[in-house]
Amino acid sequence: MQRYFIEKDNWSDIDIKIVGDDVHHIVRVMRMEQGDAFIANRYDGKSALAIIDSLDDDLVTAKVDSWLDEESESPVDITIVQGLPKGDKWEYILQKGTELGASHFVPFQATRSVTKWDSKKLKKKLPRWQKIVKEASEQSHRTKIPTVESVISVKTLLDNSYLYDWKFFAYEEEAKEHQSVKLHHYFSKIKEGDSVLICIGPEGGFSEEEARQLREADFQAIRLGPRILRTETAPLYVLTGLSYCLEEM
Amino acid sequence: MQRYFIEKDNWSDIDIKIVGDDVHHIVRVMRMEQGDAFIANRYDGKSALAIIDSLDDDLVTAKVDSWLDEESESPVDITIVQGLPKGDKWEYILQKGTELGASHFVPFQATRSVTKWDSKKLKKKLPRWQKIVKEASEQSHRTKIPTVESVISVKTLLDNSYLYDWKFFAYEEEAKEHQSVKLHHYFSKIKEGDSVLICIGPEGGFSEEEARQLREADFQAIRLGPRILRTETAPLYVLTGLSYCLEEM
Repeated sequence: MQRYFIEKDNWSDIDIKIVGDDVHHIVRVMRMEQGDAFIANRYDGKSALAIIDSLDDDLVTAKVDSWLDEESESPVDITIVQGLPKGDKWEYILQKGTELGASHFVPFQATRSVTKWDSKKLKKKLPRWQKIVKEASEQSHRTKIPTVESVISVKTLLDNSYLYDWKFFAYEEEAKEHQSVKLHHYFSKIKEGDSVLICIGPEGGFSEEEARQLREADFQAIRLGPRILRTETAPLYVLTGLSYCLEEM
Repeated sequence: MQRYFIEKDNWSDIDIKIVGDDVHHIVRVMRMEQGDAFIANRYDGKSALAIIDSLDDDLVTAKVDSWLDEESESPVDITIVQGLPKGDKWEYILQKGTELGASHFVPFQATRSVTKWDSKKLKKKLPRWQKIVKEASEQSHRTKIPTVESVISVKTLLDNSYLYDWKFFAYEEEAKEHQSVKLHHYFSKIKEGDSVLICIGPEGGFSEEEARQLREADFQAIRLGPRILRTETAPLYVLTGLSYCLEEM
């Protein structure tokens, strides 16, 4: 069944107002009518079966029929901090990472990032990125939409890292070590409700200086299997690994 | 270090001949010279440090300096059977699936596949697909190149399924079931050297008839976490799950 995320302001008890793009989608794309049902997601993560009261071109109103008990959110709060990649890889990471359960996406300006994003470019892109994670959340039946933050520096990353229960960075050198510690050794210690920060390097990987700084800030270097993954594949491995360990064991 | 896959015919003991596209890459792109080293992958999965003897525009010759002990291949033989997806998703699955350790890729004509590939179209595309998995194997430091097969029917899939130790299909309905069996319950039983067949539906998922036929042929329905994944994300979850269970625990 079609699902829509509806902002808090548009809820009053069991009455729901839908405005903006979703109206067009309901009326023109889905061609729904009065009495039709959809799933309404509230930003606090609750979801409900809703029945349409009225429709016009600017406004759809609906009522909660029954609250649903959905369990599609990860038991942990996962932040993906990604060294700015080239081309459209970032948008790809946003879409797939949302399907796989990430809570927050934060791009960072790594030493080896070829791409540079100035604040003007970012202003233009942020709405598009938020649309991508919103649509991916709907498609994957999530009840929360991940946040997409603005670009941060390595310094900011290090300064804020004390806020997280767990801090990891994917380090290519670990994958080459036969004897390196297995990923499950670390993931198996993570508890429900913990916050997990995962840092992924850009195409060229982390600089030795960045790796040194991350280690000093108590980031644990991890390997993601024995093969060398592209920068846009690494976050998917991490997210799936966390899902397997915490949701499928 | 740069690595190249060299066909059996071009090995004689420790002498290596390189022809075709790789010559251009070595001479013009990497601008290597006599005495430079690269990693030579043999199709049996062995790899060696090789030193260049001679170069010209059509032929590079090299000698094995030392054999390497690399462990980048999955301990199991994984076949991804994928319902024909739309657009360039198949090429994306080939690239990412190779990074994540798949051994064989087989597209199948599912009831709900929007795309249709005739043999003429396939003849044109197969070389391109083989190039994608070859390059992804080199990039991810694999020592074997996965195979890409031609499109099969559901009947062929069912008829050949007896050849595999384990047969699974990703079934969306399983993800919606809170009480469904966890993925690790099945993956934890897989032993080193086993052959694993994973069947993924197209965008519309499996038809009920296909799901029934697969169950009858002893395919086990599995869920891939509690979220609904796109058809091109599902194989990445399966491959990462197998990697986590068999390589990272």
